[in-house]
Amino acid sequence: MSSLEDDFNAASLPGIDDVQQARERIRAYVHHTSVITSGQLDTISGARLFFKCENFQKVGAFKVRGACNAVFSLNKRTATNGVTTHSSGNHGLALSYAAKCRGINCTVVMPSTAPDVKKAAVTQYNGSIVECAPSTAAREAAADLVISHTGAELVHPYNDLRVIAGQATCAVELLEDVNDLDAIVAPIGGGGLISGTCIARNALAPNTAVYAAEPEQADDAYRSFKSGKLVTEDAPNTIADGLKMPLRDKTWYFVSNYVNDIFIVSEQDIMNAMMLIWQRLKVVVEASCAVPLAVILKNPEKFKGQRVGVILTGGNVDLHKLPWLTKT
Amino acid sequence: MSSLEDDFNAASLPGIDDVQQARERIRAYVHHTSVITSGQLDTISGARLFFKCENFQKVGAFKVRGACNAVFSLNKRTATNGVTTHSSGNHGLALSYAAKCRGINCTVVMPSTAPDVKKAAVTQYNGSIVECAPSTAAREAAADLVISHTGAELVHPYNDLRVIAGQATCAVELLEDVNDLDAIVAPIGGGGLISGTCIARNALAPNTAVYAAEPEQADDAYRSFKSGKLVTEDAPNTIADGLKMPLRDKTWYFVSNYVNDIFIVSEQDIMNAMMLIWQRLKVVVEASCAVPLAVILKNPEKFKGQRVGVILTGGNVDLHKLPWLTKT
Repeated sequence: MSSLEDDFNAASLPGIDDVQQARERIRAYVHHTSVITSGQLDTISGARLFFKCENFQKVGAFKVRGACNAVFSLNKRTATNGVTTHSSGNHGLALSYAAKCRGINCTVVMPSTAPDVKKAAVTQYNGSIVECAPSTAAREAAADLVISHTGAELVHPYNDLRVIAGQATCAVELLEDVNDLDAIVAPIGGGGLISGTCIARNALAPNTAVYAAEPEQADDAYRSFKSGKLVTEDAPNTIADGLKMPLRDKTWYFVSNYVNDIFIVSEQDIMNAMMLIWQRLKVVVEASCAVPLAVILKNPEKFKGQRVGVILTGGNVDLHKLPWLTKT
Repeated sequence: MSSLEDDFNAASLPGIDDVQQARERIRAYVHHTSVITSGQLDTISGARLFFKCENFQKVGAFKVRGACNAVFSLNKRTATNGVTTHSSGNHGLALSYAAKCRGINCTVVMPSTAPDVKKAAVTQYNGSIVECAPSTAAREAAADLVISHTGAELVHPYNDLRVIAGQATCAVELLEDVNDLDAIVAPIGGGGLISGTCIARNALAPNTAVYAAEPEQADDAYRSFKSGKLVTEDAPNTIADGLKMPLRDKTWYFVSNYVNDIFIVSEQDIMNAMMLIWQRLKVVVEASCAVPLAVILKNPEKFKGQRVGVILTGGNVDLHKLPWLTKT
């Protein structure tokens, strides 16, 4: 049991009822995404793989589930002031989309170094952008400033129970659509998705293992899990750029208590798995999505003959900057 | 009516009954592929678009439909000698796969200049490769030699009625899965797919227009259609490398009699549409697949407010040689 558990009230943690409520709350705004399979990838892996296609999700990533649950959970008075977050990635897009669906404002704090393509994506969903220096301190200070000026509600990318309950709806769909999974493998960055996956598994499929997949070069969750003590690290370097964020107290609670194991893989493993997914499944996915398949391919004995759910978390890539082209 | 009609017996042309038989014949060996949509692409195009995902098909392309129908149509005695074709593209793969499914030999004649990755793909499906000089004459001579040595049955990539009937099953599925299409737009190369699409439309949805989409730089079908006289051209240059083959007598018959219109687009139009598909639909498709969307985007008045089926023909791309990377 985590020593950080006392930092928040365990009784307030979301359970499956909260997740089912989240599902109803967000139903009109997100897709129930499809699950695809590949005989060739089954042969290569020695397992039976079921890929949950959150790259086909609204805004191109599972993040929209948590963002919509948070936005549509707000009472009217709070909602009037809008929402804000600090994220240069998919959560910023997702929160902008969710706010647009509810007809409220969204301000996204982004480092001034963020690529124009990411800024354009946020404004496409009517999000406003506040730029800051590229550090955690500057980001949080900028978000505080937005809040003090507008009264906007902060929706953290992952260390937020509403967000975690929303992300859990992804595994609920997967467990409904595919019977008798031996395991679910999901990538781990800040831990929002894996925390939600644990909630769904605990209630709906207690015999299914939940494994987290992490880049070797951003292995703070792995080291935390193995040592039993939360390790955080700012700005590690990996092609899986959706997985750079460290765990925080709420996600660490779920990871330390409910994840069955965490596996790490190299940058080359991730790139190879990403190319396999593009070539065999014919879907566009981010490098972060390839980490679970890389883990499965690196640990064939572990997964041999098993039925394994793999969450493909998102498909927002810059087609001009593909890892196998910059690496070679 | 085409002046070439007399070259073969019109009574022997496949009709919808042949297509339905083809469908039963190949059912165990091909996927009924999914249809996907995108609110963003609908907004951009001003139409309601339904993308038929043959990139998810077995061997990654619709070609497997025609190849399987041809291979499983053979009587036992003929089948014993195997099959052969000349194709460095998806038909070579598809025929190798079909032959493997039936347990017979397949020999694919390929130019010695074909990339190793294409040769490897054929051998992956147990196909044998015979190399020849990179010209139509050399290719046909090599195929003749294979036939005289082995007695193998030639299965032409498109100018074969069994192949055309097989390709027609794609549009049959699309018309079953999506009601009230105003139009279907498919790419045109040798014309096998569009010929099959016409057969399906004629029988199942006579009010649906069938439009062919062709690269400006490989516009032999366009010029044939507009002049009423079959124009053939060897080895045009386009990034849509699946569309370089010219029409032949059988496909010209269908094109000249049943296609509603043919539209052409530039290389830049094709590349832009290809990137849109990758970015918005999150699927990996060949440049050839992007030609129909390019046509729709270039002719907004024509398609405005319409329900349009778009056939995404295949997803076998070399991830190291993407057009937007070599063009910029």
